[in-house]
Amino acid sequence: MRYQLYYWPSIQGRGEFVRLALEDAGADYGDLPPKENFLKRQAFAPPFLKAGRLVIPPTANILLYLGGRLGLAPKAEAARLRLHGLQLTLSDWLVEVHDTHHPIAGSLYYEGQKPEAKRRAAIFLAERLPKFMRYFERAADERFSYLHLSLFQMIEGLRYAFPNAMRRHERRYPRLLRIHDRVASRPRLSAYLSSGRRIPFNQYGIFRRYPELDERS
Amino acid sequence: MRYQLYYWPSIQGRGEFVRLALEDAGADYGDLPPKENFLKRQAFAPPFLKAGRLVIPPTANILLYLGGRLGLAPKAEAARLRLHGLQLTLSDWLVEVHDTHHPIAGSLYYEGQKPEAKRRAAIFLAERLPKFMRYFERAADERFSYLHLSLFQMIEGLRYAFPNAMRRHERRYPRLLRIHDRVASRPRLSAYLSSGRRIPFNQYGIFRRYPELDERS
Repeated sequence: MRYQLYYWPSIQGRGEFVRLALEDAGADYGDLPPKENFLKRQAFAPPFLKAGRLVIPPTANILLYLGGRLGLAPKAEAARLRLHGLQLTLSDWLVEVHDTHHPIAGSLYYEGQKPEAKRRAAIFLAERLPKFMRYFERAADERFSYLHLSLFQMIEGLRYAFPNAMRRHERRYPRLLRIHDRVASRPRLSAYLSSGRRIPFNQYGIFRRYPELDERS
Repeated sequence: MRYQLYYWPSIQGRGEFVRLALEDAGADYGDLPPKENFLKRQAFAPPFLKAGRLVIPPTANILLYLGGRLGLAPKAEAARLRLHGLQLTLSDWLVEVHDTHHPIAGSLYYEGQKPEAKRRAAIFLAERLPKFMRYFERAADERFSYLHLSLFQMIEGLRYAFPNAMRRHERRYPRLLRIHDRVASRPRLSAYLSSGRRIPFNQYGIFRRYPELDERS
């Protein structure tokens, strides 16, 4: 099966969580930048995956679909549901990361909501980030799955966006760091990460580095 | 199978989306108020469903699981994935409704984030509400499913929280209104809605009525 991923071509964003799964599995896939008309009919927002006649949004649903097919999820229903539940919680976490720099509206520039962003980011780093990391530290299975790829991406992104906060926090979550490092050393994944196909983090994606949102102390 | 729903006992919140499915299907279920310790081990946040030995969070995943079992979802994989994708978009919509009154942090009182809430709510009503309603007006199937129950709840909640905005907007979405009215007249559902089991909307849930967030204009 050849898969086609519809996503913005210039940012990692949500598309990257799908891309990591396709790359790690060595799947046959290509990119198709979203065309406005097609998008409007098929999904509320990218990413979505085209698989034969199926069109599947959003991210967590795509991973639910791909998981069994690409060997990135267990086969038993109970385990698949559990994994999907964890992935949905990770999606919520990602929304909260986005909203640290856009707490008022995605349609306004960051500069138009900077005081609000400082308030929201400070509480996110003090309360929510530890709560999510603690949860996944306890809940993530040691058995490899697409969730590990997504946790890798969360840690990479958080290190990019909040290097100071992550220096303070991350050592408390040894299991998450182990998962991160194991993912980074998987042969196909590490080849992908050092290839031109991996879009670098930048100031247009979900993870953005604004020093004023990540103070030292 | 007897189901047990874990959710806060005093608000509709996310639990209500599950409750509507269980009630409409006439399922055998009971409530169990969340116990902090059990919750911490099993889920990031309520609701979750206990079904035999399975513990399933969050909302959309519960409906994915219940859909086929309660006759509230199609059987074919493509149609089930499509429905689940729509439900996930509805979950995102619900987060945006919540964040109209809590744009900075869920852990702060509304009174501590009122100016930010006014900014966020105004943009939500002008941009996001029509975008979501337009999308579901086009994407929602006429065939009954758990998504219809959730769309009913969104419209009920939005009418409670934003009566002025909904008076302006809702007539543009005749299919959504038809779905809403059909759900309200389903025998088991309408019995549930007029029973004591239906917790009324209140100022502690996701849908809250703050007149300053819903100006007449």
